[in-house]
Amino acid sequence: MTDIKAALRAQRIETPSWAYGNSGTRFKVFAQQGVPRDPYEKLADAAQVHAYTGIAPTVALHIPWDKVDDYADLARHARDLGVGIGAINSNVFQDDDYKLGSVTHPDARVRRKATDHLLECVDIMDATGSDTLKLWFSDGINYPGQDDLRARQDRLAESLAEVYDRLGEGQRFLLEYKLFEPAFYATDVPDWGTAYAHCVKLGPKAQVVVDTGHHAPGTNIEFIVAFLLREGKLGGFDFNSRFYADDDLMVGAADPFQLFRIMYEVIRGGGFTDEVAFMLDQCHNIEPKIPGQIRSVMNVQEATAKALLVDRAALSAAQQAGDVLGANAVLMDAYNTDVRPLLAELREEMGLAPDPMAAYATSGYFEKIAAERVGGNQAGWGA
Amino acid sequence: MTDIKAALRAQRIETPSWAYGNSGTRFKVFAQQGVPRDPYEKLADAAQVHAYTGIAPTVALHIPWDKVDDYADLARHARDLGVGIGAINSNVFQDDDYKLGSVTHPDARVRRKATDHLLECVDIMDATGSDTLKLWFSDGINYPGQDDLRARQDRLAESLAEVYDRLGEGQRFLLEYKLFEPAFYATDVPDWGTAYAHCVKLGPKAQVVVDTGHHAPGTNIEFIVAFLLREGKLGGFDFNSRFYADDDLMVGAADPFQLFRIMYEVIRGGGFTDEVAFMLDQCHNIEPKIPGQIRSVMNVQEATAKALLVDRAALSAAQQAGDVLGANAVLMDAYNTDVRPLLAELREEMGLAPDPMAAYATSGYFEKIAAERVGGNQAGWGA
Amino acid sequence: MTDIKAALRAQRIETPSWAYGNSGTRFKVFAQQGVPRDPYEKLADAAQVHAYTGIAPTVALHIPWDKVDDYADLARHARDLGVGIGAINSNVFQDDDYKLGSVTHPDARVRRKATDHLLECVDIMDATGSDTLKLWFSDGINYPGQDDLRARQDRLAESLAEVYDRLGEGQRFLLEYKLFEPAFYATDVPDWGTAYAHCVKLGPKAQVVVDTGHHAPGTNIEFIVAFLLREGKLGGFDFNSRFYADDDLMVGAADPFQLFRIMYEVIRGGGFTDEVAFMLDQCHNIEPKIPGQIRSVMNVQEATAKALLVDRAALSAAQQAGDVLGANAVLMDAYNTDVRPLLAELREEMGLAPDPMAAYATSGYFEKIAAERVGGNQAGWGA
Amino acid sequence: MTDIKAALRAQRIETPSWAYGNSGTRFKVFAQQGVPRDPYEKLADAAQVHAYTGIAPTVALHIPWDKVDDYADLARHARDLGVGIGAINSNVFQDDDYKLGSVTHPDARVRRKATDHLLECVDIMDATGSDTLKLWFSDGINYPGQDDLRARQDRLAESLAEVYDRLGEGQRFLLEYKLFEPAFYATDVPDWGTAYAHCVKLGPKAQVVVDTGHHAPGTNIEFIVAFLLREGKLGGFDFNSRFYADDDLMVGAADPFQLFRIMYEVIRGGGFTDEVAFMLDQCHNIEPKIPGQIRSVMNVQEATAKALLVDRAALSAAQQAGDVLGANAVLMDAYNTDVRPLLAELREEMGLAPDPMAAYATSGYFEKIAAERVGGNQAGWGA
Repeated sequence: MTDIKAALRAQRIETPSWAYGNSGTRFKVFAQQGVPRDPYEKLADAAQVHAYTGIAPTVALHIPWDKVDDYADLARHARDLGVGIGAINSNVFQDDDYKLGSVTHPDARVRRKATDHLLECVDIMDATGSDTLKLWFSDGINYPGQDDLRARQDRLAESLAEVYDRLGEGQRFLLEYKLFEPAFYATDVPDWGTAYAHCVKLGPKAQVVVDTGHHAPGTNIEFIVAFLLREGKLGGFDFNSRFYADDDLMVGAADPFQLFRIMYEVIRGGGFTDEVAFMLDQCHNIEPKIPGQIRSVMNVQEATAKALLVDRAALSAAQQAGDVLGANAVLMDAYNTDVRPLLAELREEMGLAPDPMAAYATSGYFEKIAAERVGGNQAGWGA
Repeated sequence: MTDIKAALRAQRIETPSWAYGNSGTRFKVFAQQGVPRDPYEKLADAAQVHAYTGIAPTVALHIPWDKVDDYADLARHARDLGVGIGAINSNVFQDDDYKLGSVTHPDARVRRKATDHLLECVDIMDATGSDTLKLWFSDGINYPGQDDLRARQDRLAESLAEVYDRLGEGQRFLLEYKLFEPAFYATDVPDWGTAYAHCVKLGPKAQVVVDTGHHAPGTNIEFIVAFLLREGKLGGFDFNSRFYADDDLMVGAADPFQLFRIMYEVIRGGGFTDEVAFMLDQCHNIEPKIPGQIRSVMNVQEATAKALLVDRAALSAAQQAGDVLGANAVLMDAYNTDVRPLLAELREEMGLAPDPMAAYATSGYFEKIAAERVGGNQAGWGA
Repeated sequence: MTDIKAALRAQRIETPSWAYGNSGTRFKVFAQQGVPRDPYEKLADAAQVHAYTGIAPTVALHIPWDKVDDYADLARHARDLGVGIGAINSNVFQDDDYKLGSVTHPDARVRRKATDHLLECVDIMDATGSDTLKLWFSDGINYPGQDDLRARQDRLAESLAEVYDRLGEGQRFLLEYKLFEPAFYATDVPDWGTAYAHCVKLGPKAQVVVDTGHHAPGTNIEFIVAFLLREGKLGGFDFNSRFYADDDLMVGAADPFQLFRIMYEVIRGGGFTDEVAFMLDQCHNIEPKIPGQIRSVMNVQEATAKALLVDRAALSAAQQAGDVLGANAVLMDAYNTDVRPLLAELREEMGLAPDPMAAYATSGYFEKIAAERVGGNQAGWGA
Repeated sequence: MTDIKAALRAQRIETPSWAYGNSGTRFKVFAQQGVPRDPYEKLADAAQVHAYTGIAPTVALHIPWDKVDDYADLARHARDLGVGIGAINSNVFQDDDYKLGSVTHPDARVRRKATDHLLECVDIMDATGSDTLKLWFSDGINYPGQDDLRARQDRLAESLAEVYDRLGEGQRFLLEYKLFEPAFYATDVPDWGTAYAHCVKLGPKAQVVVDTGHHAPGTNIEFIVAFLLREGKLGGFDFNSRFYADDDLMVGAADPFQLFRIMYEVIRGGGFTDEVAFMLDQCHNIEPKIPGQIRSVMNVQEATAKALLVDRAALSAAQQAGDVLGANAVLMDAYNTDVRPLLAELREEMGLAPDPMAAYATSGYFEKIAAERVGGNQAGWGA
């Protein structure tokens, strides 16, 4: 149990700056009270999540949403708040030029613009000290024949190579894949195989990031995790949960058992280290933002604790013996354990309140920002 | 062939006013040139679609997007353009009050407001002479436990009953179902069974509308069509096509064979009449709007022509004989026929250009609206 | 807690006779040791499940697999073993005549034969005292056009009406639906809506049975449960679990959270009574049969216990207040509770061993049947 | 058109020996008249398909189903019938030893046995002159925890390496992937990415084979085809079609537009050569076998003809111009063309009847085999 607590204490979950801003569906963005109006306020909110959970010390930025004049100042601001800058997320999907693609666009001018943005993100990594660039491309096509599937791969490869070459010592990029949306007929990086194949060719600084909401129905995500770890190509996670498509709900809310299985494969595959980034990528469309993030961090933590509890010796023995029910039971024993008392204890040992949700709720922070953050433009997807 | 031509000549496909405005995904709405700025301009664009296809004589309105002071004037404007007002579409999903639902909201005040909007839509039907109200509810929940699934059905039933009672002579409403989006865990009318059960209880003025993009993967839509026709409960279609979710692409673009099978069941089930409304409900996110609608109308027309070509006597004989391959071949013979020459001929008989896409492209209409419609706010989802 | 224990003590889960025989996929049936060779031996195995769990007192039969000369004798045998005969399951899918359908077959002779079988099943209900007939039809078509979708509904309705009329006092039938398999293009009862519509027309003795593995990806099963309970049309469950299709794995093995949500809706909707039959319908292709059933009964029991633990007053208050995270948290608190100690305690109060799996494993029963049941034909799907 | 005809004349589609035997689902195998009883009779039936289509000159074997004492004699027999032996398909899923896996089984003895079978298949390639080994593994697990996902990859890699090393000059193997069935929780080669990664490591003699029925819902298969061709790793196809799962219906029956798109990517990617094997892998559960194969071959041929008709210069110009509707229209023009007259003409130029289905039906072959093939054991899956 000491080992488990030590492991849990060392866990690091990164929250995304955009989770603190407004978000919604194509039908409606519902505004909330107290939403940040700039990157500084987003960091302040993220610092709250860390203050109550103790395991969310970094914040991912999204460029250009989090563009500032002075990144060193922003990084300093973060440090003052007790957090740090995490991954830099590029954005090549919200400019009118990108209607038919960014790095895979048929027009070389648009591709140049998109690649330049990616290179600029590396500059921001240099300025902020971030070591990770996250690349998600909305590129794809809506209609069969609209563009040439293979030529788009050539263009993608060319842009990725240029960005790869620009990466400095200790820097890497994570390539994200997504089955569909916003492109509907074909996306240019639809699955882990595509991302993997590109990363293998590029080299060790290119790795795959698994967004748990980006798969076809029926996909076994933990298999992908196990496989990528075996290949040394798992760079990290964008955690969230989904019932149908890329719903971007709180991680663990739709299928907590799946989250547990994923965390088990991470641990079994040696991925429970700093080499694999555990990031949240969620939209709190209807629930309050900061509590939504706190709950999500706790959900990952609970799944991790359960995965750490698996009796791996017993599991391995049952597996070797071909004892189907016995092996399954070992896993389920860990999953069925209520780890909340253990985590409450751990938090107290870390000097935190045992119940982060309750502690935040009674802290007065929400009332403060609701009162203060009036006027100005609320941050949201695209701002 | 004369019969088939007569049937095709009588076909009526309704285009939606919102298809002429800008649309997009949650990631980005790409603006296009020449997009209408008010309902009057939308009707003008819709009239173009009818002018070139000859079978799109009505336009669906969306309230409040198409709210005007004087609906009689709008209807007159439509008539002057050679088209008429079709179904009235309600909208209870774009007000901040509806964050947790409209007619199923836990708060009675919000439910009242939503139902009042629906009743107002019936007023607009009276004012415009529309006989059809289309009800789609974005209502649902994102998280297990968020609200009570059954209580929401009670509230839904109550609101529907009030609207039903308000319907006048010759008026009806169509209840739409949708698997998910914008609610992710549960929607309050997720499938045809739910819509059907409510409609059966209400009576003959309540019918189900099938949006072809609103089903789970693997759903056999033509079965639903056949079943609802058998029950007298198929009120109409919202046509579009999808590869993954509710993609709202041009109908027939993703699976033209499916569209043909649907049209075959419509005809076989006696639904190829004015009682079943054939409506488009699409978003042209990246392609130009008017040509997108023309192509869509043509796609439905081609599928209809093929379905009319099915040799039903031969089909029935093969089915009765248990001749699996023979029966399938009868259907496929019709599907594999190139009906474009027949339709070109029909158009010429109707005094139209044989190729609507080409005729529109060279008409100069787009250049005209691109030049004229500068300034003002472009219409879009939500406006 | 006393109430919860009382409720759990009253729970009744029915195991299926066919779960004790061999089963497999289309690729291979793997034989196991000690498998029963006749219905008497199946009942003996089922009695073991009841002996160790205390809540599995009835056994479903499958006709003709469980055909015997003297059903009264079989029922007596069951009673002697401490169990009773549960639902009678019809089988109109394993005769060469049914290649193109049974009650929906284009040939009236085959339909007659199929309906006669269903009527015979009611005779067996009379003979065994069973009050429930379960109707699953493999009927459907593989190719578009193969048969007429609507005519098949007419035939189905005709057969169901005949069977309905034959039902005696206190008897009912449950109509099962299934998305696909063994028919691939269309099944004649593909979804709950179809089953529901037929049952509503027939009357109160016709109800819908929900097999948890028979839905399209993304279907919210607990919504269906809630809806059918609201309509008084939920007759029972065929429990099992699935990752992809109709995998027929142990219930709760694939998504224990979903099982919990289903049980919550059952309880909330007043379905936790004898009116709703809780049946297992599973195939233990690779795991041993009796332990597979014991584990499954325990999984349902654990989900039930958690569902009973939900603080419904707190839940309702949070729902009414629109507190999304709070309401979700109430549900999750119950789900995250480890109910195994409670259930162990309950079993001891019932005079049972606290750990049914361990108790069975050390009982020597398996060794006994493995030694005794040598020679003869092992029972399996189709025998 | 001359070029297109020349290309179509050169097309080669391989039919599988097992398609001529009985097949079914886990629920029932329906026996048909005239079904072959040994590999010699299967080849005779396959020769009929070639005789009427002119483009099905080879037959895939399945070991041990098609085991004979003298493969040279079997090959001679094939030649006498006008056909040749195609790919050798291994079978490591129908022995009781393989209940928990074959090459990935936890027990080294079983793995040895499975690998030995694969090596024996290479011996049979030597004996028959076949140059292609097709590897499909049913390996996987049904329950989380049942076995170690990663260890199974290690075992798979080890076995594949041994088989790879055994391949002679001019021989290759094709590795097949499959999402699920008969394993339900995880399969050991679930997707193209897994197959690809193994093949890349092994070298040029290892390639991926795409079974069109083995994907998750929503997967864009033609993207995979385009990607694998770009990487030089597309070895061939197992063609069939599906509505839901691995239905193994006639290719082109469920989604002819998808088949066309696949063939378009094959041609565009330079894969329309002898390097890519076009094989059928289907089960004619309810339709007659030989006509089922003839129809399937024709379906692939029709899709190919349409794909060859695509005006690639016009397509490329529209794509470069960002003309979404124009580019889509170029593709659809080809798809909407009725190619049956062209193919009838081609057949007559090849000395064949213009309508293969009709020609076979009136040939008397079926009546002959139905009369002759009485007694003995009909071939089927597993025999």
